[in-house]
Amino acid sequence: MPNYAIKIEYDGRPYHGWQRQRDVPSVQGTIEDALSKICPTPVEIQGAGRTDKGVHALGQVAHVHLDKEWQPFRLNEALNFHLRPAPISITACAQVDNDFHARFGAIERRYVFRLVSRRAPVVVDAGWVWQVAYGLDIDKMRAGAAHLIGKHDFTTFRSSICQAQSPVKSLDELSIEEIPSRTGIEYRFTIRARSFLHNQVRSFVGTLERVGAGAWHPDQVREALDAKERAACGPVCPGHGLYLDEVIYQTDPFAGP
Amino acid sequence: MPNYAIKIEYDGRPYHGWQRQRDVPSVQGTIEDALSKICPTPVEIQGAGRTDKGVHALGQVAHVHLDKEWQPFRLNEALNFHLRPAPISITACAQVDNDFHARFGAIERRYVFRLVSRRAPVVVDAGWVWQVAYGLDIDKMRAGAAHLIGKHDFTTFRSSICQAQSPVKSLDELSIEEIPSRTGIEYRFTIRARSFLHNQVRSFVGTLERVGAGAWHPDQVREALDAKERAACGPVCPGHGLYLDEVIYQTDPFAGP
Repeated sequence: MPNYAIKIEYDGRPYHGWQRQRDVPSVQGTIEDALSKICPTPVEIQGAGRTDKGVHALGQVAHVHLDKEWQPFRLNEALNFHLRPAPISITACAQVDNDFHARFGAIERRYVFRLVSRRAPVVVDAGWVWQVAYGLDIDKMRAGAAHLIGKHDFTTFRSSICQAQSPVKSLDELSIEEIPSRTGIEYRFTIRARSFLHNQVRSFVGTLERVGAGAWHPDQVREALDAKERAACGPVCPGHGLYLDEVIYQTDPFAGP
Repeated sequence: MPNYAIKIEYDGRPYHGWQRQRDVPSVQGTIEDALSKICPTPVEIQGAGRTDKGVHALGQVAHVHLDKEWQPFRLNEALNFHLRPAPISITACAQVDNDFHARFGAIERRYVFRLVSRRAPVVVDAGWVWQVAYGLDIDKMRAGAAHLIGKHDFTTFRSSICQAQSPVKSLDELSIEEIPSRTGIEYRFTIRARSFLHNQVRSFVGTLERVGAGAWHPDQVREALDAKERAACGPVCPGHGLYLDEVIYQTDPFAGP
């Protein structure tokens, strides 16, 4: 059966995460429902990143085997038509090799987290950023982040229900960009790794926010990491500032022949 | 009575525009309702720009005379508290001279319009941009815009219900910036003048979009302007891509003493 890769943008707020679950809306379930309108046999799509409840995506990738050949442009259009009015958009579609696997073939995942420091309630970006009303120290947050880069046992920064076989992961990037606006400052975190543990990014950002606020010394991030226990982690921050930004493969499935 | 200037960010979608009207929600009415919680006598606020239904603001300015002295920070906090959960945020507050008038004292208003060209439905910016599914030619749009800069009789680009005494206005800027993203192109219009006619910005953008799409020759913008009649205008574009970005005064009321 021909195999298709799709790239997906979504608003995570109405969904209980990527993964299909019984009785609650999910991104995967919503896309599979749209596929059922154009495909007589039930299909299951495989996503590269199992984003949590409320987490957004700009560049989620999934693959699906269909029972007939589609011109990718037509498949893309048909899916977007049947997805309306859900806040999910297929931004690219390509036919790929039969063995392309969105999840197991990914060699890197990039997340972005938007943390805004300003006093007045955020309106234009409401639901798309995590807002705190006080100032943050970017140098301290960067110093704290530096302890996390590289290959570590990330037990501290992993949800207690995480199902990954090993807590050891390599973190390739955790950088913070400062974007001033007329009314506040946005701290944009870029977090890059081959794969992530459950709640890892939100555990990082929640902990580094404590460092930025002055409640933690940057070196306490190292201590928390070394403790290798969940209780040593800072508070897990809200999901609505988090975006699955991009998924990288050895060969870009959307690059064309 | 002491006079206060406030700077306001709002999501225009739930409102029938800035101006208080009977039986429909307005930004002015919502802020006056919040003021009534902290001020026993009814007050009326004066806004610098009477934005239309659905139009957003990043930097609307208004002034209000209150019957007692407030520390501006406290007034700002109290207003934001009583505005919840309305998508309206007071981002600055200052006590100003008794004769400061937000509307008549403004020497320049700047609007921004966000027009996005991409095929897949916009999700993250849904409600904040006007989307078209086809390509646009920025050089043609710029060539069309050039005809509008300067002092002209803008009868063509003015709503038939516009109440301004004269259709002659000076347009100081109508520039277009091209902002590519991974999934499309945003055309960000910046439009600057001392004052505007009713529907003028949306008439400009709607007409220039037709030029960008190839339906109009750039020189037809000149012909439309010279016709000095409303029927010569292109289609008025939707309001939800439009933002009142900033209002300028001879002396910045929020700059502090």
